[in-house]
Amino acid sequence: MTNTLMNQLGVVKRNIVRADRAAVDQLGDYGSATVHEAMGRMGLMKPYMRPIHPARVSGTAVTVLLHPGDNWMMHVVAEQIQPGDIVVAALTAECSDGYFGDLLATSFMARGARALVIDAGVRDVRELGAMNFPVWSKAISAKGTIKATLGSVNVPVVCAGAFVAPGDAIVADDDGVVVVPAADVVRVAQAAAKREALEADKRAKLASGVLGLDMYDMRGALEKAGLVYID
Amino acid sequence: MTNTLMNQLGVVKRNIVRADRAAVDQLGDYGSATVHEAMGRMGLMKPYMRPIHPARVSGTAVTVLLHPGDNWMMHVVAEQIQPGDIVVAALTAECSDGYFGDLLATSFMARGARALVIDAGVRDVRELGAMNFPVWSKAISAKGTIKATLGSVNVPVVCAGAFVAPGDAIVADDDGVVVVPAADVVRVAQAAAKREALEADKRAKLASGVLGLDMYDMRGALEKAGLVYID
Amino acid sequence: MTNTLMNQLGVVKRNIVRADRAAVDQLGDYGSATVHEAMGRMGLMKPYMRPIHPARVSGTAVTVLLHPGDNWMMHVVAEQIQPGDIVVAALTAECSDGYFGDLLATSFMARGARALVIDAGVRDVRELGAMNFPVWSKAISAKGTIKATLGSVNVPVVCAGAFVAPGDAIVADDDGVVVVPAADVVRVAQAAAKREALEADKRAKLASGVLGLDMYDMRGALEKAGLVYID
Amino acid sequence: MTNTLMNQLGVVKRNIVRADRAAVDQLGDYGSATVHEAMGRMGLMKPYMRPIHPARVSGTAVTVLLHPGDNWMMHVVAEQIQPGDIVVAALTAECSDGYFGDLLATSFMARGARALVIDAGVRDVRELGAMNFPVWSKAISAKGTIKATLGSVNVPVVCAGAFVAPGDAIVADDDGVVVVPAADVVRVAQAAAKREALEADKRAKLASGVLGLDMYDMRGALEKAGLVYID
Amino acid sequence: MTNTLMNQLGVVKRNIVRADRAAVDQLGDYGSATVHEAMGRMGLMKPYMRPIHPARVSGTAVTVLLHPGDNWMMHVVAEQIQPGDIVVAALTAECSDGYFGDLLATSFMARGARALVIDAGVRDVRELGAMNFPVWSKAISAKGTIKATLGSVNVPVVCAGAFVAPGDAIVADDDGVVVVPAADVVRVAQAAAKREALEADKRAKLASGVLGLDMYDMRGALEKAGLVYID
Amino acid sequence: MTNTLMNQLGVVKRNIVRADRAAVDQLGDYGSATVHEAMGRMGLMKPYMRPIHPARVSGTAVTVLLHPGDNWMMHVVAEQIQPGDIVVAALTAECSDGYFGDLLATSFMARGARALVIDAGVRDVRELGAMNFPVWSKAISAKGTIKATLGSVNVPVVCAGAFVAPGDAIVADDDGVVVVPAADVVRVAQAAAKREALEADKRAKLASGVLGLDMYDMRGALEKAGLVYID
Repeated sequence: MTNTLMNQLGVVKRNIVRADRAAVDQLGDYGSATVHEAMGRMGLMKPYMRPIHPARVSGTAVTVLLHPGDNWMMHVVAEQIQPGDIVVAALTAECSDGYFGDLLATSFMARGARALVIDAGVRDVRELGAMNFPVWSKAISAKGTIKATLGSVNVPVVCAGAFVAPGDAIVADDDGVVVVPAADVVRVAQAAAKREALEADKRAKLASGVLGLDMYDMRGALEKAGLVYID
Repeated sequence: MTNTLMNQLGVVKRNIVRADRAAVDQLGDYGSATVHEAMGRMGLMKPYMRPIHPARVSGTAVTVLLHPGDNWMMHVVAEQIQPGDIVVAALTAECSDGYFGDLLATSFMARGARALVIDAGVRDVRELGAMNFPVWSKAISAKGTIKATLGSVNVPVVCAGAFVAPGDAIVADDDGVVVVPAADVVRVAQAAAKREALEADKRAKLASGVLGLDMYDMRGALEKAGLVYID
Repeated sequence: MTNTLMNQLGVVKRNIVRADRAAVDQLGDYGSATVHEAMGRMGLMKPYMRPIHPARVSGTAVTVLLHPGDNWMMHVVAEQIQPGDIVVAALTAECSDGYFGDLLATSFMARGARALVIDAGVRDVRELGAMNFPVWSKAISAKGTIKATLGSVNVPVVCAGAFVAPGDAIVADDDGVVVVPAADVVRVAQAAAKREALEADKRAKLASGVLGLDMYDMRGALEKAGLVYID
Repeated sequence: MTNTLMNQLGVVKRNIVRADRAAVDQLGDYGSATVHEAMGRMGLMKPYMRPIHPARVSGTAVTVLLHPGDNWMMHVVAEQIQPGDIVVAALTAECSDGYFGDLLATSFMARGARALVIDAGVRDVRELGAMNFPVWSKAISAKGTIKATLGSVNVPVVCAGAFVAPGDAIVADDDGVVVVPAADVVRVAQAAAKREALEADKRAKLASGVLGLDMYDMRGALEKAGLVYID
Repeated sequence: MTNTLMNQLGVVKRNIVRADRAAVDQLGDYGSATVHEAMGRMGLMKPYMRPIHPARVSGTAVTVLLHPGDNWMMHVVAEQIQPGDIVVAALTAECSDGYFGDLLATSFMARGARALVIDAGVRDVRELGAMNFPVWSKAISAKGTIKATLGSVNVPVVCAGAFVAPGDAIVADDDGVVVVPAADVVRVAQAAAKREALEADKRAKLASGVLGLDMYDMRGALEKAGLVYID
Repeated sequence: MTNTLMNQLGVVKRNIVRADRAAVDQLGDYGSATVHEAMGRMGLMKPYMRPIHPARVSGTAVTVLLHPGDNWMMHVVAEQIQPGDIVVAALTAECSDGYFGDLLATSFMARGARALVIDAGVRDVRELGAMNFPVWSKAISAKGTIKATLGSVNVPVVCAGAFVAPGDAIVADDDGVVVVPAADVVRVAQAAAKREALEADKRAKLASGVLGLDMYDMRGALEKAGLVYID
C-alpha cells in the first residue's frame, strides 16, 4: 500500500471498484455505532462531523479533494456519481466555507447520490432539509467559494481524520460517520448482524432489571482488579 | 471613515439613519447565502453564530457594546429599538454568559424588535422558542450577568468578526448572519434578485441531469488548468 | 472539607445521603437559569454540556469517575441508582468517546434513573430520543469503549468544571446543568420560588411596553456612572 | 461613519493619513497593556494573536484584505509600505495557511515595515527570527498559498476581532496587539504616559509590603459590598 | 464532605491548615509527572494550563474565586498569602482577560508567594519573566479588568477542572499543574521518592539498548492479548 | 490501494521498505515549507502539531497506532526502530494524555530514533529538551497512561490529518510536519533543490527593494483581474 496517488492533484479517476452493494445497504440498517464495533473500533471520522438534519444512510464513496475556499471540483465529482454513491469531500487545509448548497444538491440527487460527507461547511441547510438530502459536515456557513484551483476526484483521501479509498462503504447517522474498506464490507456486515442479533435479548434482560454486572459476569473481574465497596 | 466613536464607552446615540426598509425586507426573502454572494462575498459573521431555533429574518441594526459578564446596556438598548430593528450585541472580550432571556425578549418584542444577534450566550431558550423570538448567538448558558459597567449603544461595533454600523441591514437564517451596509441595501437587493431569478432555471436543468460542468461550460477551463482523466 | 476521598480510585460508596426529594423535584420546575440565580450564580457546568434532545429534569446525583476510553464503571454505577437519581459521569482526562448507548440506558431506566450527565460522548442518540431518556453530554460519538480500568462510584467529582458530591441536586434543561449542594436544596428552592413569583408581574409590565430602565429604576445609576445620550 | 469602502474588493488606496509618528513611537514604549488601559479598555485584538518570537513594536497600519488560501495581495500591499508601517492582514474567512515567509519578509523590510500582524498563518518562523522581523499571527503553518483572487489594500478591516482603519496606530508585544485610532494617538499617548508615571511609585510601595487593599483604599468598599472575614 | 462553603460568595477565610511544608517542598523536586503518577493519576489540571515562562515550583494553595472581567479579589487574596504559598485563582465563568500583571506580582512576591496558577489570562509577561515570578495560565491578554464584584478567598474551588482546597499542595512545571490534598502530601512524597529511585536504574538499562519489552517483561502479556508479528 | 491493513489491530509489521536515505536526509536541509511546496502543497499535518522545542529533522517513518490513554504499543514500536527513523504515533480517538517521557526517549535514542511525531500529549518536556530529543505533539500533559490494549505497529495510519505509510519520509521543523511518500522522495528532493536554488537570487532582489509585483511580473494579471488603484 503506497500513498503516491493520494498526493496527486488534477486527476479524475473514472473507474473505481465499489464495495458490494447488498452488504453496503445492509450496513446502513445497523448504524454507525454497531458497524464501528464490528470493525474493531476503527474507521470513525472525528465527532465534529455532524448531520445538518437527523438521518441514517449508507453508500459507496466517491471522493473529492478540495482546496480552502474553492469548490470547483464539486462539479467535476458530480459527473462521477453513480446511484448509491455518497460523495466524500476532503480538504487540503482547514476551511469552514459553504462549499455546497441546494443547486449542487439538485445535481447530486439527479445523479443518484445518497448523501454528502464534507470536512468543511455547507449552506442552504433549510432547503437541503426540504429536499431531504442528507449531509454531514464540519460547519454551516453562508460563505460561498471560488472556482480556480484543481483538486482531484476518486483518489484516496483523509476526511475528518479517517482514510477513505474510492469505493469504500460509508455508514452515517446521528452518531457519526464510519468508513468500511470495500474489501471488508461483507465480513463487517456479518459481524454487525451477529452483534445486532444479541442485542434484543440483552435489552430485554436489562429492561427487566438484570444488571450488566451480572449479565456480563463482571463482578469477579472487578474484585480481582481491586474494587472495594464501602458504606 | 475614522473609528473614534467606535471606541467610546458610555455613549447612547439616539438618532441613527436606518437602511431603506423595503430593501431590507426584500433581503430577508433571499436569505444569507444569496445576499452574501450579492455582496461580493463580504460581511458574513463567523460561522459559530448559530440560531437557537431555525428562523429567517431581516431588519435594521441597533447596536450595543457589552462587557464580559455584564448585561446592563441590554436595558439601555431596549429603549432605542424601533419596529423592524434587530439588536446586534458585541462584546469587549469573549464571554459565554447568558445575557438575554425571556424577560428581555418580552421587552424587545414589545418595542418591535425582530431578533437578537449576540456574540455571547443567551438563556431561557425553550421559552424563547415558545415566544417565537429569533436569536443568533455564540453560546447557550444558564449563567446570568451583573449590571455594573457602562458600554455603548448605537456605536459601530465588531460582532463575531463583522463590522456593523447602526442602521445597517442584518440578514440572518439557518446559514448564518450577514451585514449589509445601509448605503448598499438597494444595490445588494437588486443583485440578489438577479441571482435568485437565475436560480430557478439552473435548478430545473440540474434536476433534469444536466451537469454543472456543461451548464457553466467548465470543461475547457478545467482542461486548460491541466485536469487529467484516467481509468 | 478535605478532598482525599475525591482522589481515590477503585471505591464504590453504597450509602449516600440524598438531597430532600420534594425540594429537588421543585427545583426542576424552575429550570437551570432560575436555580442558578437563586444559588448566587454558582454551580453551573460549562456551557459545552448540551442536551442530545430538548428536556428538563431534576434529580439526585450518583457519581461515577471514568478513565478515557473505558466505560467499565458505568455498569458498576448502575447498581447504585435509586429512583429519582441522575448519573453524573466525570472523566480523569478529556475524551469524546461514546460511553453510553441504548443498552445502558435500558438498564439505567430499569433502575429508576431520570437522566445522565456526562463529560464525554454518548451514542445511539436516535434510540435514546425514542426511549425518552434525557442526556446532557460534551460530545456525540459512535466510538465505543473498553472495560479495563477501575474508577470510582459515589465519590465527589469535578464534572464539566463543576464540583458534584454524591446526593447533590442536579437541575438540567436546554440552558445547561446546575449543581445544588444537598444541604442547600430547600433554601435554594425557596429562593427560586421567590424569583419565579416576581417574574409574572415583570413579564406583564415589559409586555405592556414598560422599559426595564424604568421598572428596575436604572436611569439614575446609569447617569451617575456617566452615561451620555447624544443625537 | 459608513462601512461601504470596507466591503469593496479589488481596490488599492494609495494615499492614507498616518497617525502622528512621534505619538505612535511613544506608544511603543508603554506596551499593549498600558495603552489598552489608556484607551478605556478598547481596541485589543483577540488573545489568540501571538508573537512568533518575543518582541515589542509600534507603527502605523497599512491594511490588506485576503481570501482563504490566497496571498496574492501580500505582494500588492508591499508597494504601499512606508518606513514605520506595520502591515495588518485580515481574512474574509478563517484560514491557518502560511501566507508569509522569509522572502516576503525580506521585501517588507526593504520597504521599511516594522512588523506584520496577520489573522492567519505564517511560515519560515526560524528564518524570521534570525532576520529579527516581528510577526503576530493566529497560526504557524508550512502550507503555502495560491495567487488567484483580488482582495484590497488600505481599506478598513476587521482583524482578529478588532476594527483597523489604514493609518491607525498598532502597538504589539508579548501581551497582544492593540489598535489606536489615528485621531486618538496623541491623547492616548498622554494618558499612557500619566499611567506609567504613577506606576513606579506604586511598585515601590507594593514591593515594601504595602497591600493594594490599603494603597488603593479598598477596604471600605469591600466591606460595604458585604465582604466577610471568618476564621 | 459537603460542598456548601464552596458555593459561598463574599467570604475570606483567614486561617487555613497548610500541607506539611517539608513534604510540599520535596514534591517540587519530583515534578508534576512523577507526582501525578504517585497520586494514582489524579489531580491534574487541564493541559491548557501553560507556564508563561519555563519553571518548576511547589507550594501551598491559597485560593481565590473570581468573576469574569473582575480582579478585585486578587487584592484581597494578597493579604492572605504566607511565604511558601501559591495563589490558585478560579473563575465562575470562562474569561481570558488579563487579571494579573507586574504590580500585583510585586505585591505577591513581597508577601512571599511562590507562583500564581490562574484559570484565565495574565499580562506584562515580559516583565513577569524579568521578575522571575512563575505563572501558569489559560491565556495571555493585555485586557485589564474592573473591580466591582465580590468573590471569595480560601474557599474550595475548581480550577482548570481540578478541585483545590485551601492548603493543598500545588506542583507545577513545564508538564502542567498537579494538586495534592493536604492530608496526602507525606504519603505522596514517599511514593514519588520511590518512583524516582527506580528511574535511574531503568534509564541506564534503556540507554544501554535494553528494550522496555524485556525490562518490564511485556512479551508474554502482549502475546496473550493476541499480538501478531508479520514480515 | 486498499485500506484493509490500515484497520487491523494487534499487528506488528517487521519488514518495511524505507525511503531512500540520502534523499530523506537531503529533504531535512530544505525544511517543511519548501518540501511542502515541492510536493504540490500536499502531505502537511494539521498545524496544531508543534515542536516542544525548536528543531529541524528528517527521517523515515515507523508508525504506531495507539488507543486513548494507553501507551503499551510505544514499547512495541521501540523494537522496530532503526537508526534514522522517526516514530509517528497516531490515535484511534482524540487524547491529550502524556504518552511519552524521558524513559521512552532514552530507549528510542538508544535504538537510533531521530524524533517522535505524536497526535497526542507528551511529558518530561524539560528533560526531553536537555536530552536534545525532538518531539512534535498536539499537547503537553503530565498525565500518564495505562498498558492494556493492543494497537498496531508499521501499519498505515492517519496522524494529525495526514496519511503516513511505514517507510515514508517525515520532514519536521518549526513550521510543521510534512509526509513524503517513500516512492516520491527522490523526485521531491530534486524539486525542493530547484526551489531552493532560485530563492537566493530572489532574496537578493527583494532585499535591494525590487518588488514581488515586478519580480514575478504580476501587474498585468492584477490589472486584468480588475485591480483598481485610487488616491
